[in-house]
Amino acid sequence: MKFSELTVEIVKKQSFLCIGLDSDIEKIPEHLLNLDDPVFEFNKQIIDATHDLCIAYKPNIAFYESRGVEGWKSLEKTVKYLNNNYPELFLIADAKRGDIGNTSQEYAKAFFKQMNFDAITVAPYMGRDSVEPFLSFTDKWVVVLALTSNTGAQDFQFSWLPDENLHMYEKVINESIKWGSNKNTMFVVGATKAEHLKHIRKLVPNHFLLVPGIGAQGGSLKEVVVNGINKNCGLIVNSSRGIIFASSKENFAQAAREKTLLLQQEMKQLLKKYL
Amino acid sequence: MKFSELTVEIVKKQSFLCIGLDSDIEKIPEHLLNLDDPVFEFNKQIIDATHDLCIAYKPNIAFYESRGVEGWKSLEKTVKYLNNNYPELFLIADAKRGDIGNTSQEYAKAFFKQMNFDAITVAPYMGRDSVEPFLSFTDKWVVVLALTSNTGAQDFQFSWLPDENLHMYEKVINESIKWGSNKNTMFVVGATKAEHLKHIRKLVPNHFLLVPGIGAQGGSLKEVVVNGINKNCGLIVNSSRGIIFASSKENFAQAAREKTLLLQQEMKQLLKKYL
Repeated sequence: MKFSELTVEIVKKQSFLCIGLDSDIEKIPEHLLNLDDPVFEFNKQIIDATHDLCIAYKPNIAFYESRGVEGWKSLEKTVKYLNNNYPELFLIADAKRGDIGNTSQEYAKAFFKQMNFDAITVAPYMGRDSVEPFLSFTDKWVVVLALTSNTGAQDFQFSWLPDENLHMYEKVINESIKWGSNKNTMFVVGATKAEHLKHIRKLVPNHFLLVPGIGAQGGSLKEVVVNGINKNCGLIVNSSRGIIFASSKENFAQAAREKTLLLQQEMKQLLKKYL
Repeated sequence: MKFSELTVEIVKKQSFLCIGLDSDIEKIPEHLLNLDDPVFEFNKQIIDATHDLCIAYKPNIAFYESRGVEGWKSLEKTVKYLNNNYPELFLIADAKRGDIGNTSQEYAKAFFKQMNFDAITVAPYMGRDSVEPFLSFTDKWVVVLALTSNTGAQDFQFSWLPDENLHMYEKVINESIKWGSNKNTMFVVGATKAEHLKHIRKLVPNHFLLVPGIGAQGGSLKEVVVNGINKNCGLIVNSSRGIIFASSKENFAQAAREKTLLLQQEMKQLLKKYL
């Protein structure tokens, strides 16, 4: 998907919401468990109930891989269902991949060719040649981990590099913007780090930021917008568990829609005020 | 697998060789392509021809994921075949995973429960809570990326942290040894960085190091041993393409055995001299 298509969608839907499909088979409603592919059916119903209120879906690959071949089938079916029925939606593989060049090339094939994702999250530790293979695909995106929402973000991301007058996460941003452009590179910045968003926005005024951590992890949407918005919105805010597991009963899709609508309405107000 | 079992195997086989199953379907011998599962058949024949000369196999997960469900089937069958026929071998999932706690937990399930790997490579960027879920499994290992063999290793791993008098890769080692012990944690150190191995060995005198980069990537085995060996050997040296793609003809397994034997013989001599 192109940058312009993504921004058009945000304006059209008055939403910059991404729904995280962390579809844990142990948490999906019991009445689905008799079906052939409970996880796909769960995703399908969630998607059908929410697609007009969000601009992106983000399957968390771990929750599929933990079920082996069966999980991978659910994932492929979910992506195909989205491609066929809602091609306007931006699809992010939350995979945190990254390896030497010939191996990243294979991961790129997995997520961009074998499945038709628009974007993949990548871990930057192995540097430029571990990320570039993903950038060689036209209209595909990498979402580079910059500042994550977990407590372990303290361990290395905040390391101070006085020679460069930067923290490690700032260096990751400063280096990786050279590998691509704001048309194929985004950054993960946790919502629990809203005070840093303002600073990161100065480093990358024109890049999209993917912001997880709203909801279950405790981040505030308003804080994220006030500190992170740019002239194209420039934000994709993710919520996973708070939406998809809003109810564990037969009404789960309706309950997910209600939670999604609340977030979309809040986003609409914030876009009116700050965009 | 326990530390003691691994070291016993090294002494018994006079080998510390890991064979990387980077089983690219585009590179495997043509005569296999008519079979039901060419990649599994390729792996099986490679394993049968080499298992007595090496102590570990390391499937590179990207080469399986790039083939989707079919690839994942080949991977599961390979691991099951190894578990059933050669339980003495140490199995490393070269997956470079790492995410927030609840997600790393799912990756751990994928590789330690759904498939019975002994170890997984992990990327440290997200810090302690992204690695700990893997360490909660008994007799399973994490192999933390420290200093990798690719050129991108320069981008962040060598960043200088004067406050701590450390490079980033040294900090990764110093921090992550606190999360587990030498009985469940290893480090990836590229063979192309042999001059740094000596220094890393001082930081972690008792940990195993997984050393890729021999062969196709140009590292020297002798340099690795001289600089990296400890009293338990403490090294697992990987070769992938140099062994498994030694021949693209019907004799590929025999050719792989010959390459493996050369390495094992060199290892035997080096163990005699330096252990």
